[in-house]
Amino acid sequence: MTMLIEPLQAAAPQLKLCLPEAIEDPKKVTFALAWDPSDQAFEPYPNLKLVSSIAAGVNAILACPSLPHSVPLIRITSALQAQMMAGFVTWHVLWHHRGFGQYLQQQQDHEWYRRDKQAPQEVRVGVMGQGCMGRAVSDTLVGLGYDVAVLSRTGQDVSQGALSLVGDKGLDEITRRSDILVNLLPLTPQTEGMLNDALFSQMPQHSVLIHMGRGEQLVEDDLLKALDQEHLSGASLDVFMQEPLPSDHPFWAHPRIVVTPHDACEPTASQVMKQVDEALIRVNQGEQPPGLVDYQRGY
Amino acid sequence: MTMLIEPLQAAAPQLKLCLPEAIEDPKKVTFALAWDPSDQAFEPYPNLKLVSSIAAGVNAILACPSLPHSVPLIRITSALQAQMMAGFVTWHVLWHHRGFGQYLQQQQDHEWYRRDKQAPQEVRVGVMGQGCMGRAVSDTLVGLGYDVAVLSRTGQDVSQGALSLVGDKGLDEITRRSDILVNLLPLTPQTEGMLNDALFSQMPQHSVLIHMGRGEQLVEDDLLKALDQEHLSGASLDVFMQEPLPSDHPFWAHPRIVVTPHDACEPTASQVMKQVDEALIRVNQGEQPPGLVDYQRGY
Repeated sequence: MTMLIEPLQAAAPQLKLCLPEAIEDPKKVTFALAWDPSDQAFEPYPNLKLVSSIAAGVNAILACPSLPHSVPLIRITSALQAQMMAGFVTWHVLWHHRGFGQYLQQQQDHEWYRRDKQAPQEVRVGVMGQGCMGRAVSDTLVGLGYDVAVLSRTGQDVSQGALSLVGDKGLDEITRRSDILVNLLPLTPQTEGMLNDALFSQMPQHSVLIHMGRGEQLVEDDLLKALDQEHLSGASLDVFMQEPLPSDHPFWAHPRIVVTPHDACEPTASQVMKQVDEALIRVNQGEQPPGLVDYQRGY
Repeated sequence: MTMLIEPLQAAAPQLKLCLPEAIEDPKKVTFALAWDPSDQAFEPYPNLKLVSSIAAGVNAILACPSLPHSVPLIRITSALQAQMMAGFVTWHVLWHHRGFGQYLQQQQDHEWYRRDKQAPQEVRVGVMGQGCMGRAVSDTLVGLGYDVAVLSRTGQDVSQGALSLVGDKGLDEITRRSDILVNLLPLTPQTEGMLNDALFSQMPQHSVLIHMGRGEQLVEDDLLKALDQEHLSGASLDVFMQEPLPSDHPFWAHPRIVVTPHDACEPTASQVMKQVDEALIRVNQGEQPPGLVDYQRGY
């Protein structure tokens, strides 16, 4: 994730944005935008009032030892960005459900073959995560007629028309019922490595994983094993343990994996700065900024 | 489009369905299911009370000279089938908008390259047709954040959140504004050959056609010309002048055309028979059956 400073500055002319190397008096800095900060990144700035990620993820910022936990940290929770994620995930759900890979192959072979069609009502899709993005994804899939279940921490504010599942018991149930399982959970100590052999073995035979969370949540060798044993029939992966994905990684050439380069969605500069501007106003008024991260929860 | 009689019969055990060759007394036949009937298909049955298509299209039935226009004709307008169409079209919209063809190529090349992203709010999608299917398509695309315009005959009952355009003036406007133009109009004398050179030349430079209507609506050579002159940047085609598409047809190998085998959606046997059953009850009560075709309008 990279974002140039010029469009951010253009989107918020009322603020003065600087790259760290251009800052003359660090004491005057009251706000920091970050993504993957170096260990000492926050040290020079004693007067920070707000830190913001430039996107939805904050795991790398939370891992930074110089981050002052007394300062509120926000993540970008743009509804517009969530619509972009919803489209991206929906494309992958349809790719697997409707067999678009086979259609593309048929076209290469000049072969007219109408496929057996399964109605979306017969396809059980599980969406893990009901934040801004997970909610947009499951709303879209409910609208398209899929049999949707959603997993959340509280069961509150989840998609209408979806089966609401909660907590550890819900994780177990969504894993067992999903023909297509979509991961949109944040990276936390609880979700690290959760997409592993044990979870895959609970999923139905010939089910599919769509992984849009964070690379560290997936045990990559376990996925390859589940695919090669034909327990899982396919996977769409946008995030990886090592990014960019090394050119000799087995995911690239796997016939049943679709690889995209951590590109599902990102907020525009104006979406970022709109939320930052609102957050700065709230913080200055002593109120809670939008998108506030719970340091305890980890997102 | 083919449909076996067994699942239809199983979905409506209260009716007795027969293939024409198995009918002993044609005078007892009060209802006919059809798709692409031969010229004399309806002649043997003097006591028909209802004719139904097995799907949404009725153009081939209307073209049958033995069809008695005194008998009500219905087409299948299943909301469940419309959801299937909505997913299919959405996949193609995302294919073109997000450049999934390039992602698949990058994967083949083991190449990690994050693409410039255009927000859906900046992509103008036009949906021609606001029947059961067109409406489901535009509802979904509005939900995903696209800048949607819809074309209908009356402007009534169209998607909330879309720009409503009507009639010939509306056709002109939707053609000029659409980065991605989706055709879901029925085949009628007015729509035959409408996707032609004149229409393509009005579309914005580098725009895209998604054609899910009927093959006879598209002048195939005009599309090839518009693509090869790079006025249009891509097309997704599910319907063709000749189906199956001949194996030497230039569409198959065109690098910017996605070909699918008239497979976007079809109603299940139970969806067909549910509507037929309801229609027979209504007709017997002297009421208007659901999905009634206007012989004058042609759909």
